[in-house]
Amino acid sequence: MSHIDGINAPLKLIGKSLDRLEARSKVTGKAEYIYNLVLPGMLHAKVLRSTVAHARILSIDTSAAKAMPGVHAVITSEDVRKIIPDPYFGPAFLDQPVLAIDKVHYVGEPVAVVLSRDPYIADEALHLIDVQYEELPAVFDEVEAAKSEIVVHEALKPSGTFPDLRHLAGKRNTNISMDFHVRRGDVDKAFAEADHVFEHTFHTQQVMHTPLEPMVSLAELTATGMTIHTSSQSPSFVRMEIARLLGWRESQIRVKTAFLGGGFGAKLYIKLEALVAALTLVTRRPVKLLLTMEEQFYCITKHATTFRIKTAVTKEGRITGRACTVWWNGGAFADIGPRITQKSGFTAAGPYDIENVSIDSYQVYTNLPPAGAFRGFGISQVVWAYESQADIIAKTLKLDPLAFRRMNLLREGRPQATGTPMKDAALTQVLDKVAERMAWDKPFDHGTGRLRRGRGIAIGFKACVAPTTSMAMVCLSADGSCFVHVSTVDMGQGSDTTMALIAAETLGIDVKSVRVIHPDTDVTPYDMATLGSRSTFHMGNAVRMAAEDALIKMRAMARELGIEEDGPLTATHVLTHQYRMQAGNIVGVGGFIPEYISPDKTTGQSEQITPNWMVSATGIEVEVDTETGLLRILRLEDVVDCGRPLNPKIVTTQVTGGAIMQLGASLYEKMDFDETGQLRNASFAEYKIPGIHDVPGIIGAEAVDSIQHDGPFGAKGVGESGTYAVAPAIAAAIEDAVGVRLMALPMKSEEICRTLHAADPAFNEESEL
Amino acid sequence: MSHIDGINAPLKLIGKSLDRLEARSKVTGKAEYIYNLVLPGMLHAKVLRSTVAHARILSIDTSAAKAMPGVHAVITSEDVRKIIPDPYFGPAFLDQPVLAIDKVHYVGEPVAVVLSRDPYIADEALHLIDVQYEELPAVFDEVEAAKSEIVVHEALKPSGTFPDLRHLAGKRNTNISMDFHVRRGDVDKAFAEADHVFEHTFHTQQVMHTPLEPMVSLAELTATGMTIHTSSQSPSFVRMEIARLLGWRESQIRVKTAFLGGGFGAKLYIKLEALVAALTLVTRRPVKLLLTMEEQFYCITKHATTFRIKTAVTKEGRITGRACTVWWNGGAFADIGPRITQKSGFTAAGPYDIENVSIDSYQVYTNLPPAGAFRGFGISQVVWAYESQADIIAKTLKLDPLAFRRMNLLREGRPQATGTPMKDAALTQVLDKVAERMAWDKPFDHGTGRLRRGRGIAIGFKACVAPTTSMAMVCLSADGSCFVHVSTVDMGQGSDTTMALIAAETLGIDVKSVRVIHPDTDVTPYDMATLGSRSTFHMGNAVRMAAEDALIKMRAMARELGIEEDGPLTATHVLTHQYRMQAGNIVGVGGFIPEYISPDKTTGQSEQITPNWMVSATGIEVEVDTETGLLRILRLEDVVDCGRPLNPKIVTTQVTGGAIMQLGASLYEKMDFDETGQLRNASFAEYKIPGIHDVPGIIGAEAVDSIQHDGPFGAKGVGESGTYAVAPAIAAAIEDAVGVRLMALPMKSEEICRTLHAADPAFNEESEL
Repeated sequence: MSHIDGINAPLKLIGKSLDRLEARSKVTGKAEYIYNLVLPGMLHAKVLRSTVAHARILSIDTSAAKAMPGVHAVITSEDVRKIIPDPYFGPAFLDQPVLAIDKVHYVGEPVAVVLSRDPYIADEALHLIDVQYEELPAVFDEVEAAKSEIVVHEALKPSGTFPDLRHLAGKRNTNISMDFHVRRGDVDKAFAEADHVFEHTFHTQQVMHTPLEPMVSLAELTATGMTIHTSSQSPSFVRMEIARLLGWRESQIRVKTAFLGGGFGAKLYIKLEALVAALTLVTRRPVKLLLTMEEQFYCITKHATTFRIKTAVTKEGRITGRACTVWWNGGAFADIGPRITQKSGFTAAGPYDIENVSIDSYQVYTNLPPAGAFRGFGISQVVWAYESQADIIAKTLKLDPLAFRRMNLLREGRPQATGTPMKDAALTQVLDKVAERMAWDKPFDHGTGRLRRGRGIAIGFKACVAPTTSMAMVCLSADGSCFVHVSTVDMGQGSDTTMALIAAETLGIDVKSVRVIHPDTDVTPYDMATLGSRSTFHMGNAVRMAAEDALIKMRAMARELGIEEDGPLTATHVLTHQYRMQAGNIVGVGGFIPEYISPDKTTGQSEQITPNWMVSATGIEVEVDTETGLLRILRLEDVVDCGRPLNPKIVTTQVTGGAIMQLGASLYEKMDFDETGQLRNASFAEYKIPGIHDVPGIIGAEAVDSIQHDGPFGAKGVGESGTYAVAPAIAAAIEDAVGVRLMALPMKSEEICRTLHAADPAFNEESEL
Repeated sequence: MSHIDGINAPLKLIGKSLDRLEARSKVTGKAEYIYNLVLPGMLHAKVLRSTVAHARILSIDTSAAKAMPGVHAVITSEDVRKIIPDPYFGPAFLDQPVLAIDKVHYVGEPVAVVLSRDPYIADEALHLIDVQYEELPAVFDEVEAAKSEIVVHEALKPSGTFPDLRHLAGKRNTNISMDFHVRRGDVDKAFAEADHVFEHTFHTQQVMHTPLEPMVSLAELTATGMTIHTSSQSPSFVRMEIARLLGWRESQIRVKTAFLGGGFGAKLYIKLEALVAALTLVTRRPVKLLLTMEEQFYCITKHATTFRIKTAVTKEGRITGRACTVWWNGGAFADIGPRITQKSGFTAAGPYDIENVSIDSYQVYTNLPPAGAFRGFGISQVVWAYESQADIIAKTLKLDPLAFRRMNLLREGRPQATGTPMKDAALTQVLDKVAERMAWDKPFDHGTGRLRRGRGIAIGFKACVAPTTSMAMVCLSADGSCFVHVSTVDMGQGSDTTMALIAAETLGIDVKSVRVIHPDTDVTPYDMATLGSRSTFHMGNAVRMAAEDALIKMRAMARELGIEEDGPLTATHVLTHQYRMQAGNIVGVGGFIPEYISPDKTTGQSEQITPNWMVSATGIEVEVDTETGLLRILRLEDVVDCGRPLNPKIVTTQVTGGAIMQLGASLYEKMDFDETGQLRNASFAEYKIPGIHDVPGIIGAEAVDSIQHDGPFGAKGVGESGTYAVAPAIAAAIEDAVGVRLMALPMKSEEICRTLHAADPAFNEESEL
């Protein structure tokens, strides 16, 4: 990475809290969302979805729907295949059809589409489509599916994108689309020699991302091909994948995004884009497909998991071995699940210094709605298990849970389970800081009578997806403005402001003169995607490099023109000299890819498995009503290591936002399937997400003093960190309050009540006094 | 300008005829035009125009119009001034109000606007607005106005953009907004010593550009300010000028264009943009303003001129002195007229080697619709005069008109009237080639009886506007596609194809993998404007430089990666190595401004007044019906020097297209004003433009073998060349046919008839035989 003189001068903007540059446009309703986009003559698409979990499609009769006045067309896979002969897509496996072909794999799978100028007519006409199914046996549980004879897909079809999946091509009679393994030391020997061996199984449930702006995509044919306007976190991928599906040049597909009303991983890869592309090609009309909130339950979800964790510990409390087996319930389509299986898999043993580790991580197809990336990319599921067990071990060994963790935490330079040495990971500082904020060493009032209080602390860490590339351009104009061209999607995380800040700091200009151009694959340069808290680190570096490149060019131009460099050098000054009037631009370009070494296929070992480690610890205080089980979170403290906080205000809201989101998955949210795979609660009347009254009375967030050595101005990502450790800290606090240990999410009040009264009926009686 | 190895290798694409890349999108109706753009919730604007040529506005009563159902608002300058305190604009003078303030200056000036969701309602409501005027005396003729006491504007307000106009600030009691002078040698002495002195006055008329797509602009408020979608040739200028008017940062104004259905100079600078910007700010709604074909007569036109030309000649036919006085009828607003006065002014003595020259060129305000740039930028008006006189002189001296011209033409290296030495101007070759194509040295059958035939040849040349800047970016993607980012507007001249060709040739890639991004001031870099045949030379150079820059970067990246440079090096290959997957971009940037030396204020002398000279000669054969005067153009041959023709197919259509357009101004088109300034023929029922039956039976175009030394691949512009010499060649052919010399355009058949019969009644009788 190039560095130029003056770049290490005292920082003027970085590290100070700055209001989001887009705030005004959002509160005044001017911010652009694809949701609001209207194209002349466009058709609205409504989707008919499978009513059964696994079945062969015998027939689809669309005649009545087609005959309904106002219906423009009714489309099935038959029509799609005239346009796209092999209409299967997916980032890891080509397993997802644009519309169901021959069979359906889960309740909610798209089977047919009605198109109309009027979305209500389209919706109404769905009822007139008659689909006949021949039902097949289905499988829903991830552990069962891993060994079941019921297979969701006949054969595996890796997309070719990931080299480590290629060997699975054509594999039959399996639901396992990825098995990832780490082998370090001799874990069997460790168990044999251990003073104590703990073995537990933890569960997490399937939940939904619930972005405020539901998924929406529009496609239109243009002079040069097709433009897809889409609420997507990955415009570059959409372009590539749609071009592949259609057999077109990539440059014939233009993908544009706007602000996203939340993404959280739901809007990655291909969601509605392949379908609208096909629909617009069939009809030669612009087509808009906008999901309802309810339909999103059937589009993409978070992996339910079963995590069997077995830990060898010395009598002093030193962890000497750990064996982890994680089953990821991928639902009917793999989506990016295989990557989660690997990336979160290799952290499944926790941020602990353990000589002997074995990890087996399995991505499993089931007949449920597909699961993919979800804020944290699998981390909150594994932290739930290893941190819950940490408390169980500490309690058993009568150790302070913090002391137990401190004793075992990975120190700087020590190898993590994959063999990658820890670097710039402030694990101990984060844990200590959250303990300090919680006054952990002070006495704590647990209460008496009906209302009992407890507290817990947990810690988690995450690797960053690698190797991925970000490109940026910084364009200085003679009027003094600066345009930053990036394909990073501002989905509420504040990336526009962050990128503007990095450019302004590097260039030494006012941040308000910087405008960030939203992704448009025809004009903004390549970015892998906006996911996994990678943008600040990757795109931040690319923007800084681009701004430095612009500075270098400006200085070279000034030297050539004989302009004195002593005074402040502005683009206006230099360009006006160069072009004799207010004209021209100076364009800087930056491209960033971090170091990365692929893990060994058998042992999962790598000297450099991630460009950085993102760390977070959560402290929780709860109050439990022992009569009803009603749980109140009194306090939530989240401390992170995000390197240098570029804009503390955004760091705080990212951390608390992530934590509150994870409260939902910890306490209330669960997609509730019956034994036939029917989702019982696909509605916000029955599926509760955190509301304003669920936000803890005391909620704190802090970043420890830390520098990510190769981050832009020392920064790394923080968009997911707040989520890691919330659930196990709550579980610990509940146990601390009422002595009940919950092993599965969500920890609903009724579950606490049931477990509490089953364990100790006295509580019930006591509260009646 | 940078040059890299291999750039002078044999050309693979340049010089071969290539179909326009956008052709398919145009014939299939997919090409995007602002005309077709619909924004949700947009209002349509309709303009009430002045019915008098010069008047004070006493009152505007909008109450009845406002009361009409469906009318959203009625706007006058009173409303505009709440948004824009000083709402005057213009490229050279701030003389044009967004809507008329206090007075009107010509019939057709915008006075008020009605806004409605329904354009027909808006149109209807215009009739309900009651404007009371107090009429003022008006002036229409350019020569009269130059000395009149009736002044169109109280005081001159130069915009500040052009240094040579600043001294006029505040000047009162004049209609002359620019007086440009060239003084070379001693012209009085030349006249005193001449064997012959010829003095004539020639006239041209006001005509309209008639783009197939009428002018249209839409404005909308956005998250970051305002976006103006406009059918404009000058997006960079629109951004700058609207920002100035509103007092906003330039980066708050985003200007986007699409394909233009013709521009011809009509769509330059500010036309409807200031009005839609004001309307959208007043109403906070998107506003579309789309002129009717008829309204365009009141928007911008071509300068009518009076040209007094006095020439000293030896008895052998050598021109020894020439005095030119040109009055340009600018109408009510200066627009870019002052620049035309200068740029075409300094070529008014023709492409001849004359020791003693005096030129006086005056831009004059009158109470007519404003005149501005029009394909040729004033050149066809001056060529009309100096080439018509060339034939008169030759005939008087009994010299062959070609021999007379050859004797006097400027040779390479000789100074033109401004003192700039001629370079890369193939004047003699162009003249010889058109003579060859016309078989000038062969006997010609003039016919007998009623139908007579004649032929004529004329030559013209044009300087290129300077100094102006073009910037380009070339972005290579890992999928093999190449995006060219330029703010050049493709208005039918084929610039997209030309820029793609230059990029592809430089990069050594398939031209079909190149996509040219249309102007968008937020994303495409600066370009002065698309005008004056400057794009091929300026932007062509910038694109070549950007492509070379990308090549240099790609080669550097390859070297760093240790990739063998022997084989074909592709962006896909290099980027895939660099970023370990199909990812990333290589971005090259180019900025071009040619050498230029401003002319001396008093003498108009400059060593480098233009980056290049564009040359064209036209040969014409006509047939005249001596009874009716009916004129038929039997043959038109147009030969140009455009340096190396990059794409011969486009050169041919540009040349013949220009020539046919100029046929209209030569033969039929004339805005016909009555003595009160009312336009009598603002309709295509009464204003004839060339139709398919008017295209000559034989029409030829050719580029001579020539190289513009500093042009991209040796090229320069050709978009206007076809127009220069059409009119005088026709006049010569008419005189050759029937002995009638016409001194004013258009040369309508009825005028020929009238002049013919007035001159020689015998023709009439003869034809009756």
